[in-house]
Parts: sequence; structure tokens; C-alpha cells
Amino acid sequence: MNAMNKKVPLRPQDDLADALVAEMAAVNVLIRERMASKHAPRIPEVTAHLVEAGGKRLRPMLTLAAARICGYEGDHHIKLAATVEFIHTATLLHDDVVDESSQRRGRPTANLLWDNKSSVLVGDYLFSRSFQLMVETGTLRVLDILANASATIAEGEVLQLTAAQDLKTDEAIYLQVVRGKTAALFAAACEVGGVIAGAPEDQVRAFYDYGDALGIAFQIADDLLDYSGTSAQIGKNTGDDFRERKVTLPVIKALAKATTEERAFWTRVIEKGDQRDGDLDHAIKLLTETGGLQAARDEAFVWAEKARDALSILPDHALRQTLCDLADYVVSRVN
Amino acid sequence: MNAMNKKVPLRPQDDLADALVAEMAAVNVLIRERMASKHAPRIPEVTAHLVEAGGKRLRPMLTLAAARICGYEGDHHIKLAATVEFIHTATLLHDDVVDESSQRRGRPTANLLWDNKSSVLVGDYLFSRSFQLMVETGTLRVLDILANASATIAEGEVLQLTAAQDLKTDEAIYLQVVRGKTAALFAAACEVGGVIAGAPEDQVRAFYDYGDALGIAFQIADDLLDYSGTSAQIGKNTGDDFRERKVTLPVIKALAKATTEERAFWTRVIEKGDQRDGDLDHAIKLLTETGGLQAARDEAFVWAEKARDALSILPDHALRQTLCDLADYVVSRVN
Repeated sequence: MNAMNKKVPLRPQDDLADALVAEMAAVNVLIRERMASKHAPRIPEVTAHLVEAGGKRLRPMLTLAAARICGYEGDHHIKLAATVEFIHTATLLHDDVVDESSQRRGRPTANLLWDNKSSVLVGDYLFSRSFQLMVETGTLRVLDILANASATIAEGEVLQLTAAQDLKTDEAIYLQVVRGKTAALFAAACEVGGVIAGAPEDQVRAFYDYGDALGIAFQIADDLLDYSGTSAQIGKNTGDDFRERKVTLPVIKALAKATTEERAFWTRVIEKGDQRDGDLDHAIKLLTETGGLQAARDEAFVWAEKARDALSILPDHALRQTLCDLADYVVSRVN
Repeated sequence: MNAMNKKVPLRPQDDLADALVAEMAAVNVLIRERMASKHAPRIPEVTAHLVEAGGKRLRPMLTLAAARICGYEGDHHIKLAATVEFIHTATLLHDDVVDESSQRRGRPTANLLWDNKSSVLVGDYLFSRSFQLMVETGTLRVLDILANASATIAEGEVLQLTAAQDLKTDEAIYLQVVRGKTAALFAAACEVGGVIAGAPEDQVRAFYDYGDALGIAFQIADDLLDYSGTSAQIGKNTGDDFRERKVTLPVIKALAKATTEERAFWTRVIEKGDQRDGDLDHAIKLLTETGGLQAARDEAFVWAEKARDALSILPDHALRQTLCDLADYVVSRVN
């Protein structure tokens, strides 16, 4: 279904899952245990819907992999991996309310099945539960990293809100939004794995850099697929960003080369929100012709390379190669 | 404007504010500093609206008072007080989305002035910022207390969602909801003040018990005022709970003594949501005649007494008396 790059294995995340099968089983047990609620049955209903939908569990696997690469032998990485997945799930619940989404991971969203109220409050609950879990590790540095990541996530989401519908959004703002919506948690997930393992500072930094670059590459690819992919490929409707008038990298790149007439089109559909039949197709045509899609694709590959480079100082380990392959894989989706 | 109990001073929270004026000034500086955002100007806009609206700042004052009573001489209590206010503000933003409120502290709500999206995301931001602040205190026990309080808050809010419109809601469920929406943060605010001061365990427990009972008394009084107060008195529209079909203590007490005809009325307006002109007045009449209002009022006074009792083992201190007066005050509003 996806276009493949010959140099990378079919799905490095499957390799990760294989290598981490016992630990991920422990993470999943912990997630099920902690997403329960003694008092409010609505909570496990909503979380089960989302958790059972079978996300890739990429973020917790990053934490486990980082800890393993650094030779960690304790069990706090299990709690941290569950923490990271809880934060992720909480942000998904809130995102779907904010974006008024109707589909997530190929299934109806919680805000559609229940209501916005449940999504807001269950998201808050999961965020609190993640916080309890990380406190249990007793490591202040880990708490600091995850608190900072949480703030970056929320700030990026608010920035996205005000940057949408605004064609003045530039690549710097876009990057800040992308760090918020994706890269901050990828980076923190990797970094805490290194920290819990007691890795030296340069390795901890390398994990942060890897996660940051991987997240950015991943999100640029996602933003590309919103124009160039299929619904089956991305697990939600294509054209969502266009309909929500988000100014993503392909649009920014296309705008830089737009004629007066083309700019008028973008102003009408993105800034004024006056979208008509055929506009999405026309947008895709413009993104292709101006090279906006290609320029964004090139950028994704630059970030994937940065991710690979960051790994170079880490201990030699089979999982290090898998992380390297993962960086190739996230952009191979748009090759 | 408020009915006064002769034994208590006019407003003990003013005494608290007077005694803590220098520390509260430091808390307010910290709040303004930390509610800013380098990247997203929408954030300070929304938070300023709410923060400048001049809430009572009761929760941070509880933290400061508890620390002072225990002779604390450091400055981490300033951070904890700001933390507690941030958590409170974050929950208000989310509550107003969930309740579809239009008025808060006598002003239009953020969800009305901006939109639900901004309220959800700025709430998340404030919650993350609170988390960063408490990490800075470097005290894991404090983090544990506030993480648990956050989970109780979110759980109580979800429970309230499913308990609303359900006449089977009993006093135990109501109490759980009240702990979530009010008492958990009051209790944690007091408890962390004791913990940061290194108070002995029995005193820490006493602060928790005081805050818990104070919060319950406060919320029962609030729920009473929603039927018996004036809009000016409570800073929002009266009858909101009725319109939102919340099953609060006066209704639970009234239902216990309801005739078949009265029960049919409650079923229509609360469970079926079929509310007509004059229904709120009829509800108030029933709540008065069945003694529902009086029974709830009695309960509020029982909790206020529990709050006062909890203080007895704490060190003798002028602020201890102020906290005692505060317990009387929160219920004097419904005397």
C-alpha cells in the first residue's frame, strides 16, 4: 500500500515491536490498569475505544528502545512508556474536539461517539494519570522533561489555532506548531528512556535530537499525505487540513512561488474559508505544479537524515539500527 | 448582601489577604510571568481575561496560610500557591466548555469570547505550566499530592457528566462529584503547604482534612445558592444547575421525600430535560416545601464543623483562627 524505499525494511516499527514484545506487554497491562476508574465508568469506555483502536504505540516503544540501547535493567521504563502513551492519548482526545474530527485511526472519534464534554474530561483524566505514573518513578529530571514537553505540546496547539487561516504563517511558525503537535513528545519519549538508564549527557541529548527530528519528519510526511495520500493510508479523511484551513508546509512552499491568481485562490479558500466543489483538487494541482509538495518532501528527508545522524554517538545496538530504519521509514511513506 | 453569622468576621478571606499580602503579591507576579507564552499570544489573552477577572484566590491563600502556620521560612510555597491557582484556572476553562457556560465571575466566559478550542487548549497549557512549577520545588511528595488531586478532579468531573440527568444519583455519588469539583484541590492546596513546611504527619493530615471538609461545605453552599441565591451573589446565572439537569444535594434531599406527583416533575425536568416556563420557580417551591434546601444547608454546616475540628491539632497561630472563621463564612452565605 505504501511506496517503499528499497534500503529500509518493510516496517521498522514491527521490528521494534518484535524486539520489545515482553516489555510492551507489560506496558499494555499497565495502560489498561491505569486507564480504569473506580468511580466513573465513562472513563474506561472512552479510553478503551481509543486505546483498543490499535495505535502504533510508537512513542512508548521509543522510550523502551532508548532505555534498552543504554543497557537499562530496571523497570521504570515501563511506567515511563505508559506515561508517554497516556499523554499522547490525552492530546488525541483534545485534538479531535478542537479539530471537530469525525475519524481517527479509521474509526469514529470519541467526540462523535460520546460528546465533546467526555473527550475534554477524559483527556484531563488521562493526563493526570500520566502525571501520577511518572511521579512513581521518583525521578525529578524525568518529570521536568515531560512537564516541558506537555507545555510545548499545548503551546503548539494554541499556535496552530491562530496560525490556521493565516497565510502569513511562515516556516518558523510551522516548525513550532509541528514541534508542539508531534516532535516534543517524540523527543521527550526518547530522552526519558536515556535519562532513566543513567546515560551520559551527550547520549541523552542525542536521544532528544533524534526524537525531535523524527517527529518533525513524521509530521511533515503526515501533512503531505493529507494532500497526496489516501484515506486508507492515513486512517482519516484526506483533505482535512485543507477543510480546516491549516497552513501546512506544502501550502507555505507553494505560496512562496504563487502567481497573483494562485495567491487569490489560497486567500479565498484558506483565509476567507470560501471553499467550493473542486477546490481541494485544484489545491492539489497547484501544490504539485508549484513544487510545493516536492519541496515539503525534500524537507522531510532532511529531517530524517538529521534523526539518523543524531544516533551516531549512541552505543552500538541492534535497536539503534531499528531506530535508524524508522527514520527512513517515516519519510518513505511520501517517497 | 450576604446573610451574616454574628460570630464570624465580615469576610475572613479579606483577613487572609491582609495577612498574606506580600506573599500573594509574589504569587501574582509569578502567575503573570508563567501564564505568558513566547509563541502563542492567544494564551495570555485568554488567561488574562480569567485571571484579571479577580477570582478570590482562595486556594493559593490556603497554601500560603498552611505553610505559615507551620512556620515555613522558604519560598517554595509561592510556587505551590501559583501551581494551585493554575490548576484551578485550567479546570475553570474546561468546566465552562463542558457546561456551555456563558458567565463566570460576573463576566462572559472565555469559550464565549473566543471559542471552545481556545478554552480547551489554553486549559491544557495552564495545567502543563502548573506541572512545571511544582517540579521546580523538587519535592516528590508534593508532586504526588497534586497528581492525585488532579486525577480526582478529572474523575469527579466525568462522574458529574454521567450523574447529571440521572435521578438515581445518591449522596455518595454526589459527594464524590463534589470532592472532584472542589474539595480535592482545597485539600491538596492545604496539604502541600504543610508538606513544604516539613510539618509532622498528623498536621499534614489535619490540613488535608480541613481542606476536604471546607471544600465540601463550600460546594454544598454553592449548590444551594444556585437555587436560593441571586446572580449578583454567585457571579453567574442562578438556576444553571437546574437547566444543566445536575442532581445536586437539595434535589437529592427533596427526592427522598417526594410524592409521586413531585417525582414525576423531577423526572420530566431532570431526566427527560423537558423544561418549561415556571419550572425553575416550581422546583424552588418543592425544594423549600420538602425541606430539601434546609437538609442540604444542615449538611453544609456539618462539614464546616468538621473543617473547624480538623484545625484543632495545628499550632496556635492567628491564621489558624482565620481558617476557622473561613469555615464558618463559607456556610454563612446560606444561613
